[in-house]
Amino acid sequence: MRDDWATFGADLHLDLRGTRLRAGLMDALREAVRSGRLAPGTRLPSSRQLAADLGVARNTVADAYAELVAEGWLTARQGSGTRVARRADPRPVAGAEAAAGTGDGEAPPGPPAPPAGPTPAGPTPAGPTPGGSAWRVVRRRTSPPAYDLRSGTPDLASFPRAAWLKAYRRALTAAPNEAFGYGDPRGRQELRTVLAEYLARARGVHARPERIVICSGFAHGLMLIGRALRGRGARAVGVESYGLGPHAGLLRDAGLATPPLPFDERGTRVEELTSLAPEAVLLTAAHQFPLGGALPPDRRTAVVDWARATGGYVLEDDYDGEFRYDRQPVGALQGLDPERVVYLGTASKSLAPGLRLAWMVLPESLVDEVVAAKGAVVDWMCGTPDQLAFADFLATGAHDRHVRAMRLRYRHRRDQLVAALADRAPGIRVGGIAAGLHAVLSLPPGTEAAALRSAAWHGLAVQGLGHFRHPQARRTLEGLVVGYGTPPDSAWQGALQALCRVLEGVDTARPPEDA
Amino acid sequence: MRDDWATFGADLHLDLRGTRLRAGLMDALREAVRSGRLAPGTRLPSSRQLAADLGVARNTVADAYAELVAEGWLTARQGSGTRVARRADPRPVAGAEAAAGTGDGEAPPGPPAPPAGPTPAGPTPAGPTPGGSAWRVVRRRTSPPAYDLRSGTPDLASFPRAAWLKAYRRALTAAPNEAFGYGDPRGRQELRTVLAEYLARARGVHARPERIVICSGFAHGLMLIGRALRGRGARAVGVESYGLGPHAGLLRDAGLATPPLPFDERGTRVEELTSLAPEAVLLTAAHQFPLGGALPPDRRTAVVDWARATGGYVLEDDYDGEFRYDRQPVGALQGLDPERVVYLGTASKSLAPGLRLAWMVLPESLVDEVVAAKGAVVDWMCGTPDQLAFADFLATGAHDRHVRAMRLRYRHRRDQLVAALADRAPGIRVGGIAAGLHAVLSLPPGTEAAALRSAAWHGLAVQGLGHFRHPQARRTLEGLVVGYGTPPDSAWQGALQALCRVLEGVDTARPPEDA
Repeated sequence: MRDDWATFGADLHLDLRGTRLRAGLMDALREAVRSGRLAPGTRLPSSRQLAADLGVARNTVADAYAELVAEGWLTARQGSGTRVARRADPRPVAGAEAAAGTGDGEAPPGPPAPPAGPTPAGPTPAGPTPGGSAWRVVRRRTSPPAYDLRSGTPDLASFPRAAWLKAYRRALTAAPNEAFGYGDPRGRQELRTVLAEYLARARGVHARPERIVICSGFAHGLMLIGRALRGRGARAVGVESYGLGPHAGLLRDAGLATPPLPFDERGTRVEELTSLAPEAVLLTAAHQFPLGGALPPDRRTAVVDWARATGGYVLEDDYDGEFRYDRQPVGALQGLDPERVVYLGTASKSLAPGLRLAWMVLPESLVDEVVAAKGAVVDWMCGTPDQLAFADFLATGAHDRHVRAMRLRYRHRRDQLVAALADRAPGIRVGGIAAGLHAVLSLPPGTEAAALRSAAWHGLAVQGLGHFRHPQARRTLEGLVVGYGTPPDSAWQGALQALCRVLEGVDTARPPEDA
Repeated sequence: MRDDWATFGADLHLDLRGTRLRAGLMDALREAVRSGRLAPGTRLPSSRQLAADLGVARNTVADAYAELVAEGWLTARQGSGTRVARRADPRPVAGAEAAAGTGDGEAPPGPPAPPAGPTPAGPTPAGPTPGGSAWRVVRRRTSPPAYDLRSGTPDLASFPRAAWLKAYRRALTAAPNEAFGYGDPRGRQELRTVLAEYLARARGVHARPERIVICSGFAHGLMLIGRALRGRGARAVGVESYGLGPHAGLLRDAGLATPPLPFDERGTRVEELTSLAPEAVLLTAAHQFPLGGALPPDRRTAVVDWARATGGYVLEDDYDGEFRYDRQPVGALQGLDPERVVYLGTASKSLAPGLRLAWMVLPESLVDEVVAAKGAVVDWMCGTPDQLAFADFLATGAHDRHVRAMRLRYRHRRDQLVAALADRAPGIRVGGIAAGLHAVLSLPPGTEAAALRSAAWHGLAVQGLGHFRHPQARRTLEGLVVGYGTPPDSAWQGALQALCRVLEGVDTARPPEDA
């Protein structure tokens, strides 16, 4: 079934940055019509629906619709809603097919001519040729992708605005006056108290409020720990062979080397810590990012034993511990030894990165040094209102409700992803799906680059495993990291179809086209 | 006239930290009764009034009152309100007088015996002796001061909760979905756009949104600039001889030396920059902190000329530019040369430090380096909701209204301070009163330490100029830095009276008692 909404929301989502919302929306709509992504006659969602979907005021959408009707791009008729205007003289526009994710497997309809209006479409280059010319690549780079399956961000359209506002109002009303002053560098006591209880319950973390330090996101916490470790003479922190380059970069900024740990099919080979001999190791133990596995029990024990034997620390990046689908969540490694594991959690996946809320649960031996790195006497970094709101959000159960709802939604998307791939690209192995907001699609050697070019051609933003490979990693894997949590609901089906088209083009039998 | 409220609010203010608000309030009330700060028969404010004053829910206060009535500490009678219970057998409690700032100059009433209750008062040491024993000092350190005139914080009880909530709600409702994601490391475009207009209008700053970088408070901004300057090879940033030690410390953390600039009665001697030859200088040009003067016009020109001639930078710490009382605000130095002056502003004084909102307006030549220091690709530090709320707060005029109201209130306090000192301590010179939230009371050489001990004895937290002196400063001044903006309205009169009592004890004619 066609889903114009899907194409539509995704286009708009990416064009809407900036303050001139209405103008941005109008540009996005004109571009969608001009390129053929929105076919003539297509019925648009109501202004109320689209406003809710995009998270903008309804008037913004209604005004944009009205102006585009006046300009001739759209038509509005009582009882029939707002539709893309039907025009004669369709002219092919290059690149239109790539982004025309209608999801029904048919060739997309011929794009219409640009209507007379204040924004002329300009000269139209020759029709598309398969394979993608240099011109096409440039064009893709300058216009936003129609779909976004990059990992690292939850579905931002699902941010629970009403529940969050309620928590914020309650928290701000009840806050003592001193909450508006310079605070404890560990963060608000209210939040640390509730977090201690939550982390024990949800993640098996041994946490006492005085061991918790609130920070402005995971990166801030990692910076502080890096400085504290460097300050006591550490020289290296081992990292995973596949992971986030900027995180290793933060450690290097603190003056630490970041050698990669080898891995095998069971995950990171923590036994190699003995020969690498770093002072600490950064691990995504519950759900390796990006490969997706959980560190097996014997290695969990082994890494803690290593830390005990050497006086080292395990830095546990528990970025998406809330989202596990097929069985009980894997408890935090920190539970095995709170004096040797630094637990790092965040609201960036469970709620939103824009809140910049994260927390560390520290071994006794690191508390003073990390607090000193953060600001010593007062909290210079973390604003209190959102800390208090989050404390209320946790204490009232709103967080649990939100996580439960999102878990169902993400799980449903994951199931759809697995089913669609089994149907359309049965040669592709899907991994890392027991938890989190992303999956890894393994590709035959030498095919990742072509798959990424094909994705760009199809208007799909997605990352290859190469994006996450440590430059000194010993092994190289190829594949796509699919952040199925990223798109808003309205764009999910379109994104999935675009992904299937990309994978249908991957020849799993033939040798690579290029290397 | 007695003002039990005053004593009361101030005591409670400092005891109320933590989540167990009701328990904290009860402890504070018990302690106030036990120590005699609240005399038997004293009528307490209504639960509604006290809840509003403390910024807590009314039920919290009502419940605390009810329990204390049940415990026998308070009595409640229809028509007569809630009062401190009258008890027989009054026993003196050491230290009670110090904190009993009743504001009428009389000796405080003899404190009552602790009533039978779940919190026994414990053994009572011998009655007070003038001068303060070691025991007394220890006791002072462990119990919060009754009054707080330390500088650096606005009146937190005046935070405009309702207006801020309104702005937050509007901003969060209107925000596009992408606002909840990882953002531009310069901060939200909405806020930078509004700030550019505001800073031009209110402070004469030449600001374009793309030159503005939002940061988590002034300290965060200074860290980033320190790293950027160090990164391009700078070795030293000149600082003022009197200023905030932690600020210089942030620059030293970045690897920069912080030599102090000498000063004379006209302010910082910027002409000495030529011989000191730092790559930048940190100045509070509009209202020197803590000494209180504005940099005179010829020196404003001279410091900018120095920066132009040497390729240096002026870091302008415009911490309280909104508050000027006797004439038009002194415009920002940045207006003289936006390519050589880094402007640093903050909402910590105009609104509240707890928001952790500040901004830099950068010369073109520093933008990329500062942004790289902050996070390069995405904003890792500043949460978006409060940025959007502040943008709304500025755009709707709520900020202007709040600043106007606070300006009147602070000016009134300043006038009361000047009048009270003229009356009670005519030998003391008051300086730095044309602007800001603090004044400097000059003291004869050798009397500052004794004045600070006397303040502690009177339950008054206040800082001496010595607290702000650069260790390598050539000259030494003595005096008290009085943050008259700090206390809530309910504690202001009591604080002022305590300050007068301290200053009455300073012998402006005799040689210092100790050095």
